[in-house]
Amino acid sequence: MTVELRSDNAAAVSPAILEAMGAVNSGSALAYGGDEVTAALQDRVRDLFEHPTARVFPVLSGTAANALSLSALTPPWGSVVCHETAHILGSEGGATSFLSGGAVMTGIAGENYKLAPEALQAHLDGVRWGDPHHSQPAVLSLTSPSDYGTVYSVAEIAELTAIAKTRDLRVHLDGARFANAVVATGATPADLTWRAGVDVLSLGATKNGALSAEAIVCFTDAPADELVYRTKRSGHVTSKMRYQSAQLLAYLTDDLWLRNARNANERMAELAEGLRKAGVRITNSVDANLAWVDLPEETADRLEAAGVLFHRLDGQVRFVTSWQTTSDDVLTVLGLLGSA
Amino acid sequence: MTVELRSDNAAAVSPAILEAMGAVNSGSALAYGGDEVTAALQDRVRDLFEHPTARVFPVLSGTAANALSLSALTPPWGSVVCHETAHILGSEGGATSFLSGGAVMTGIAGENYKLAPEALQAHLDGVRWGDPHHSQPAVLSLTSPSDYGTVYSVAEIAELTAIAKTRDLRVHLDGARFANAVVATGATPADLTWRAGVDVLSLGATKNGALSAEAIVCFTDAPADELVYRTKRSGHVTSKMRYQSAQLLAYLTDDLWLRNARNANERMAELAEGLRKAGVRITNSVDANLAWVDLPEETADRLEAAGVLFHRLDGQVRFVTSWQTTSDDVLTVLGLLGSA
Amino acid sequence: MTVELRSDNAAAVSPAILEAMGAVNSGSALAYGGDEVTAALQDRVRDLFEHPTARVFPVLSGTAANALSLSALTPPWGSVVCHETAHILGSEGGATSFLSGGAVMTGIAGENYKLAPEALQAHLDGVRWGDPHHSQPAVLSLTSPSDYGTVYSVAEIAELTAIAKTRDLRVHLDGARFANAVVATGATPADLTWRAGVDVLSLGATKNGALSAEAIVCFTDAPADELVYRTKRSGHVTSKMRYQSAQLLAYLTDDLWLRNARNANERMAELAEGLRKAGVRITNSVDANLAWVDLPEETADRLEAAGVLFHRLDGQVRFVTSWQTTSDDVLTVLGLLGSA
Amino acid sequence: MTVELRSDNAAAVSPAILEAMGAVNSGSALAYGGDEVTAALQDRVRDLFEHPTARVFPVLSGTAANALSLSALTPPWGSVVCHETAHILGSEGGATSFLSGGAVMTGIAGENYKLAPEALQAHLDGVRWGDPHHSQPAVLSLTSPSDYGTVYSVAEIAELTAIAKTRDLRVHLDGARFANAVVATGATPADLTWRAGVDVLSLGATKNGALSAEAIVCFTDAPADELVYRTKRSGHVTSKMRYQSAQLLAYLTDDLWLRNARNANERMAELAEGLRKAGVRITNSVDANLAWVDLPEETADRLEAAGVLFHRLDGQVRFVTSWQTTSDDVLTVLGLLGSA
Repeated sequence: MTVELRSDNAAAVSPAILEAMGAVNSGSALAYGGDEVTAALQDRVRDLFEHPTARVFPVLSGTAANALSLSALTPPWGSVVCHETAHILGSEGGATSFLSGGAVMTGIAGENYKLAPEALQAHLDGVRWGDPHHSQPAVLSLTSPSDYGTVYSVAEIAELTAIAKTRDLRVHLDGARFANAVVATGATPADLTWRAGVDVLSLGATKNGALSAEAIVCFTDAPADELVYRTKRSGHVTSKMRYQSAQLLAYLTDDLWLRNARNANERMAELAEGLRKAGVRITNSVDANLAWVDLPEETADRLEAAGVLFHRLDGQVRFVTSWQTTSDDVLTVLGLLGSA
Repeated sequence: MTVELRSDNAAAVSPAILEAMGAVNSGSALAYGGDEVTAALQDRVRDLFEHPTARVFPVLSGTAANALSLSALTPPWGSVVCHETAHILGSEGGATSFLSGGAVMTGIAGENYKLAPEALQAHLDGVRWGDPHHSQPAVLSLTSPSDYGTVYSVAEIAELTAIAKTRDLRVHLDGARFANAVVATGATPADLTWRAGVDVLSLGATKNGALSAEAIVCFTDAPADELVYRTKRSGHVTSKMRYQSAQLLAYLTDDLWLRNARNANERMAELAEGLRKAGVRITNSVDANLAWVDLPEETADRLEAAGVLFHRLDGQVRFVTSWQTTSDDVLTVLGLLGSA
Repeated sequence: MTVELRSDNAAAVSPAILEAMGAVNSGSALAYGGDEVTAALQDRVRDLFEHPTARVFPVLSGTAANALSLSALTPPWGSVVCHETAHILGSEGGATSFLSGGAVMTGIAGENYKLAPEALQAHLDGVRWGDPHHSQPAVLSLTSPSDYGTVYSVAEIAELTAIAKTRDLRVHLDGARFANAVVATGATPADLTWRAGVDVLSLGATKNGALSAEAIVCFTDAPADELVYRTKRSGHVTSKMRYQSAQLLAYLTDDLWLRNARNANERMAELAEGLRKAGVRITNSVDANLAWVDLPEETADRLEAAGVLFHRLDGQVRFVTSWQTTSDDVLTVLGLLGSA
Repeated sequence: MTVELRSDNAAAVSPAILEAMGAVNSGSALAYGGDEVTAALQDRVRDLFEHPTARVFPVLSGTAANALSLSALTPPWGSVVCHETAHILGSEGGATSFLSGGAVMTGIAGENYKLAPEALQAHLDGVRWGDPHHSQPAVLSLTSPSDYGTVYSVAEIAELTAIAKTRDLRVHLDGARFANAVVATGATPADLTWRAGVDVLSLGATKNGALSAEAIVCFTDAPADELVYRTKRSGHVTSKMRYQSAQLLAYLTDDLWLRNARNANERMAELAEGLRKAGVRITNSVDANLAWVDLPEETADRLEAAGVLFHRLDGQVRFVTSWQTTSDDVLTVLGLLGSA
């Protein structure tokens, strides 16, 4: 028996997505995005986000989506303001500093792994604007869900972006698990992004059932115009882009993305409820599909011995559910917990 | 009717490769290359190249493979010496200069789209070595087949790398169409690469039947040690790497890669023979699967009107065959030519 | 009346330094450092630091000295570990991230504006070594005196570098005010640097009487070999380098550098003593020539109105003495304070 | 006896410039360009160039002036179009590619070391505009005088910039020896620059009598706005900028810059005339203060033995006169030639 709770990117690919790739596998097509599938994806994104001029760039990793987006939103001398636990700051090997030509990332503390309006305001108030000795905040980057499974509400995003825009910062949303945030908030994609002030979204799919497909979605033209070149010269324009676009199109069709995310969120809710009943302390607010828990060493060992896969990170145990996780998986874990 | 001769990257995916992706699509697997398929690919590459310590990095585009390889082979103040028509110089949007931190590419003229030993020697002799006013040649990059379909023999590669090594240059081989070169020369992968002095190979697969998979193959450790970090921070480490590795593994199994390339080369040979008989001037040496021809404007128009797809570039017409091209496709084109 | 306490870089140039520039102003000399004055400087630095192979690179700003040094000590994917108030982190516009090709600076908290061994150890213990998702600490950068006027003892430096070296970090010392640290500690230049584990020193002179001259001093060869190229391609090799070398040579001759720094430190000690007597709270340990004080707004206004120049930064008042500051200047300020 | 003809940057500093530095050496001044001397320089530049909003950035090397200017004129994915012998392309260690974040320099052949309008037009016509596989020409960079001593006329510059602007390229003039070009053409600084379509000028002074001072002069605001940050984060904002500004101000006062350049040009004219009379072949058009000549090996040896300093480069001998060169120097050289 194995229960996979290490990461949602350890999961397999949704059958519908694999089928979609097979479905476009006939004849030939213009390379580098000049194909019909990519054009259809562009239309689908505009519909879904209710934005007639949104532009989509399929890329192949979340790091690429984030760092390329940010490189198109900040000048090299800018700083990217984010939470101190942001994925871009601690888990992407400095990709943003590299691809942007030396921009700096500035992490700010905040409860529940989210930026607080007051902290953002205080940070911006403390900047020596126009003084080249000091990196100039140019982008606000939010991560929702955060790596700790917490989700910003539409109102929270809007409040933060409003503060950012008083200083002409542009806004990026790291949505590696965007579908989980949509499900968690019940908000529309448009309300969670551009209507709340987001300029560019990293729209993840790989963690939620795609094979290898993320998308940068631009709601303003300036970064999109740059990304035409930035994606190419960083090696992120694939020649057979239609197979990536097919993944993303299938992902965003018939609510597959939301169905997958809903399963992940619901299984996590079941797991969290069971953990709490079993007296296990969960250290984050379980808004989506991640739980960080204080698990006694011997309990963790016992779960592992029984075939439950998870990570021990920074002194805690992290559980992540995915589109593949079943209620039986959850019951198995809870049963093991209770059997002590 | 359509005959696809625009590019080999316009072709579809080999069924065996798509099936291989489906075959690994069960259960879960550790992300970022920590999976069994990637380990099997590593073994396969070592077998195939007869090199016990070769290391492979799956990436997603030829530009990524080339620019990342070169960034690990040159210091930022180095220059990459290549033919003046090299793909890295003219068709990758400056990716090598970007990912290397500002290295310069130096193109050298040479007949048949290949570097000549004398020209390389003369270039190296003219360098002011150790003078920081002048970019210091650090890498020799060969492209075989070139974008003009010409292929270096093992002896030609060895002669060039021997010259390069007298000045401590490292050697990169852009093998976006490496399989076509193996077929064209009849040489083993080992003889065409490390035994001839190549340090790092960009091993293409996408143009020859893969979906989206290229591989960097390092025959020396220093660049490989850097690539662990360079791939990540440029966004080129995919979380579900097993699906890329599965492509590459299938590609390199049961000679699929050679069978595909052989078809492309043979169909091109048929086409070239027919073109010559029809009095069409071919401007390159047709060693692999590309032909550049002087085609009268009206003939080109007629072919296009009849459904033959090809590119007009720099005053010429370019035909590219692929693993999908059939002898019937060739006959169709030749028939159209003859019907004038 | 004016009393200059804004910054030591607002001071004029020591007459001996200006004279030294005039003294070399005859005849002609090989450009770009191939002159005799630069050779003499090289010798002088080796004598002074008791290091037979130390190599010196004259540059023109402290930012250049720091960022170039660090770029030669860290790979682009490395991180530079420093105090959270380090000049390199907060006051150089991201120069280190830029010139290094995207390295990240990591600030660590510590009392008295200095890194504590425990904090450094804890940071290094928490790193996921070899994992490319995480920037890999590659350099420890210390600032002494810090921007808050606090100075590391030889023992403190040695303890920190010993910890750093257990993880193969290299060590950089930002000595923009190195002379003030030498005077403050009474230690020899060698003891404060390479004997305590420092690999590369940014040796400042501009703040202490030079016109426009800083020096990078390398005690190991690897970064020096890189700096030959890194200085040139960032525009930091001046053609008439002899005039910079003449400044540095005069600076390091007849103890001018120490005499200048001693004046600055002593005047600050007088000022600090007077401030304390006047009941003004000084928030830093006054080890060198800077004091940060809590001064009532109206007192600050009054000093300013009377011609005392200083900066108000982050809610405090900063006083900086220089080689030009006189005891009369100090008495004037203290007199103004007392006259309230 | 010594006659210095190696380079104009081997010459000493004009006494008036050294005096000007001494003259500002009293009291204190705000650092980083916030001083009165720098303000006066700004005014002087606007007067001299008859341009009310020109902005000046003192830097310390020609490489810095060029590479920083270009980095503010091209996006990272752009290309800088220049003559194939341009100093920026061959003699600055790739600084432009580095400081721009990976832009590419494209050298074009042209007679007399100058770009021809037809060649520029042909190059621009051949670009695949908007295609990210291909670097997009973004700046035209002219060098006048060239490293081979040839000078563009106002009409030549205007014709080239007009072509460039049809494709929205911006224009940079590498004026490391700008004064020599002004003297050679007899044109006003304004006519040679912005009135002829130049956006940014690298205004050299070091080769013509300054100690260590060059200036970037921007005639349009966009690059100037960027340079505020780009100069700082590359380490090119000196704290005691007033000493650089004092040099430049003295240089541009009382026609010192033109008197110095006139001497250099006139001495070179005398030398060239003598060389021709002596039957020595000069391979360049001697428009300014450089001559490249075919000198028999033994003649060169004899001159050297007699104390004449010059460089042998690429199979030729290069003579460069400076503000210090005297007619006696020239007679000495010619006498040595004639004495064979």
